[in-house]
Amino acid sequence: MSGNRPATSMDVARAAGVSQATVSYVLNDRPGSRISEETRSRVRDAAERLGYVPHAGARTLRTGSSGVVLVAVPDIPQGPLATGLLEELDKELGGRGYTVVQYGARRTKGVAAAKAWAELRPTAVVADASRLTRAGIEVLRAAGVKAIIGMGHAPMDDVPSLLTDHEGVGALAVRHLVERGRDPVVAVVPREEGLREMGLARLRGARSAGVPVTAVDLAFDEAEAAAFVAGLKGGEGVFAYNDEYAMLLLAALHDAGLRVPGDVAVIGCDDLPLARLTRPRLSTVRPDLSAAPARMATLIDRLVRGTACGDVDVWTLQLIERDST
Amino acid sequence: MSGNRPATSMDVARAAGVSQATVSYVLNDRPGSRISEETRSRVRDAAERLGYVPHAGARTLRTGSSGVVLVAVPDIPQGPLATGLLEELDKELGGRGYTVVQYGARRTKGVAAAKAWAELRPTAVVADASRLTRAGIEVLRAAGVKAIIGMGHAPMDDVPSLLTDHEGVGALAVRHLVERGRDPVVAVVPREEGLREMGLARLRGARSAGVPVTAVDLAFDEAEAAAFVAGLKGGEGVFAYNDEYAMLLLAALHDAGLRVPGDVAVIGCDDLPLARLTRPRLSTVRPDLSAAPARMATLIDRLVRGTACGDVDVWTLQLIERDST
Repeated sequence: MSGNRPATSMDVARAAGVSQATVSYVLNDRPGSRISEETRSRVRDAAERLGYVPHAGARTLRTGSSGVVLVAVPDIPQGPLATGLLEELDKELGGRGYTVVQYGARRTKGVAAAKAWAELRPTAVVADASRLTRAGIEVLRAAGVKAIIGMGHAPMDDVPSLLTDHEGVGALAVRHLVERGRDPVVAVVPREEGLREMGLARLRGARSAGVPVTAVDLAFDEAEAAAFVAGLKGGEGVFAYNDEYAMLLLAALHDAGLRVPGDVAVIGCDDLPLARLTRPRLSTVRPDLSAAPARMATLIDRLVRGTACGDVDVWTLQLIERDST
Repeated sequence: MSGNRPATSMDVARAAGVSQATVSYVLNDRPGSRISEETRSRVRDAAERLGYVPHAGARTLRTGSSGVVLVAVPDIPQGPLATGLLEELDKELGGRGYTVVQYGARRTKGVAAAKAWAELRPTAVVADASRLTRAGIEVLRAAGVKAIIGMGHAPMDDVPSLLTDHEGVGALAVRHLVERGRDPVVAVVPREEGLREMGLARLRGARSAGVPVTAVDLAFDEAEAAAFVAGLKGGEGVFAYNDEYAMLLLAALHDAGLRVPGDVAVIGCDDLPLARLTRPRLSTVRPDLSAAPARMATLIDRLVRGTACGDVDVWTLQLIERDST
């Protein structure tokens, strides 16, 4: 170690008796150089001895690509689905030489968000579509970001998207309720900021199924759920937005002495492990994300390499019929 | 913009007719320079026009501090507690000029993990204690990381810790069960890797409360829960490790026709929103994390500035008595 400052590639070069360029070639595994195995191992030994590690930032300065994939986490609470997805994406991209970092959860968007992200000189940025404005995208491009990808439920004009088909969730749930003879059909739209927009997309899907659907605004609140349940007449099929809202309604229906599915049928979305523990067991729409990490990694890698490509579906949907419908 | 490469501080200097050092002083808000407001606004205008954003990596090279706080996310699924905590930490540190990034969830530890983290030249690293080996800490120090902090339930020799008091959870839960006249007392230890160690710490705490405590190994599985419940004789008080396991047991007890708390009392931990929806409503130990973000930010900031400081408690514990005990 050189005093108490971190070792630099210059220190490694001096210790190994080679040029700084040689150190860079060896430690970054760059192709196209004729460096002997003996020199390579001398450089690697010196780096090891001095505690030198390559610097993603310095790599950026030299090659224009840090390999950093910046994922701007959405403002909504991260469920186990999102966590597992990021873990798998990290594995997929790690195998291709990228480093995934999640950017802190500050609620910025547009140019302000883009400038903050650009400070890390990422090679790729994956962000919620609502946070990517046209001006923000320009800031990222000017800062050398090669792949810019939106996540959302509708395609974007300027950049490719990872599409989460919320309309499909609503349509699948309501078709199931209709098949089970439910009438009328009710769809819950959560009032929380961050969920509301997805709720409205699910409602649009619910209404595409060919039957009248009543929309109900609902906060995640036991008193509101009790008031909603008190207004039911029996026979309803309720698409509860997700499993958490479905569990809220199941508790309220239980408290009101209503039978599920005898009086009211309830279906959720997500197939949360906890939602399988309800009695009756909850029917749900399961978003199958198993193909998503590989698709996302391929999309990012193609954009970085400049190969044209389009939108990608994050999930496929599957109806899980249990006892609540 | 300069062709299709990102604008550099040199481009800004040329456009504003000043030196590169002046650009650096103005855009990084560094103190101690005498630059007129007129020059400052000319530099800022040029940066804006060229789409230039400062480069966290380049800042590292000049000042030795990137301001990046790298949080290596734990291998266990991230609950809403952990998510909220990171969001608040990000706000606290953002206000002090730091940038929080979460590093991908690859299951590395020791030197391998430290080398990967060091590539981003963070100013601070916060990682699960189990991933910080002595050799790994040396790698980080050699790479110029100024603050290295472990997260775990026991203090560490080499670095300060953010302490999560799992023993306190077990002790508080069992004292409550004893006060409610429960005998015998049973503590669930989850079998999942990643949870098991915390389960054993909670068990140690449970056994410190002064009564015999039977430990039960349990996977998060309905069949196993049913088998466990079939062996109960009545009168037991069960500390279920956390709210999710408590919900698993409530479902199994319901299926077996046992009354809660009449036959068996159950207490969880976490105070999850979903766990409030159980019938009977779940008693739980609530880890209050509200003071944690400010404490963590202060610890990180002090370490970066070289001010000596010690371990910090992440949470305080509170018993929430509802209807299941």
